[in-house]
Amino acid sequence: MCAKQFKNEDHTTESCTASIAAVKDALYVLNGKWKLPLIIALQNGPKRFNEIQRALGDITPKILAKELREMELNEFVLRNVDTGTPVVVTYELTGYSNSLETVLAELRNWGLQHRKKIKASMRKKEVTG
Amino acid sequence: MCAKQFKNEDHTTESCTASIAAVKDALYVLNGKWKLPLIIALQNGPKRFNEIQRALGDITPKILAKELREMELNEFVLRNVDTGTPVVVTYELTGYSNSLETVLAELRNWGLQHRKKIKASMRKKEVTG
Repeated sequence: MCAKQFKNEDHTTESCTASIAAVKDALYVLNGKWKLPLIIALQNGPKRFNEIQRALGDITPKILAKELREMELNEFVLRNVDTGTPVVVTYELTGYSNSLETVLAELRNWGLQHRKKIKASMRKKEVTG
Repeated sequence: MCAKQFKNEDHTTESCTASIAAVKDALYVLNGKWKLPLIIALQNGPKRFNEIQRALGDITPKILAKELREMELNEFVLRNVDTGTPVVVTYELTGYSNSLETVLAELRNWGLQHRKKIKASMRKKEVTG
């Protein structure tokens, strides 16, 4: 990580640039607000399209189809077609999705504390305002 | 985190929903491809607008101004105006930005290994294709 000034004397602009590039690479493939929540929704085992939609809450079918297609291309998700009657299509995580486990755990922890912070500052405004 | 099926018997749909909500909260405020790279760019100490733009590489001034405004509102960034001659405006991280340190470190690590994976699969295609 790009170290703070004065704290770490061996910090270089190059290491900062490398960190920026790595985070941009990660965000390039995880872009948008749905891919990471979608991975969490599937961590519980394969799901059908409607089940994923319900788990994510407020995503439209059109956007969900687009996100699933992108995640298939990027090898995060497998699309399984069971050709019985009726045909059942399920989506499941690939092994590669597991590599995001720590990222997701950290983002979840941060999201929890951020919500607490927002709530506390709203209460403060109510009291003082 | 929402546990994988069969691995963790005490997993519930509720804990999965809570994880999805927390990650959605986090992504809501960190939306887009620039906010996290921008935080890294400022980890090295306060910077002027042009310096940030250079560090991020391919961001337009219009988008950077918008991102900085949003990050000021969300208390990630402070805008300092030094009213000397000439007036110097710098941007610096707030203490709250530090709470993203582990998220950023994990995302950076993931981005590095993702780039390696993509490169390896491209080499494979070159050999076999």
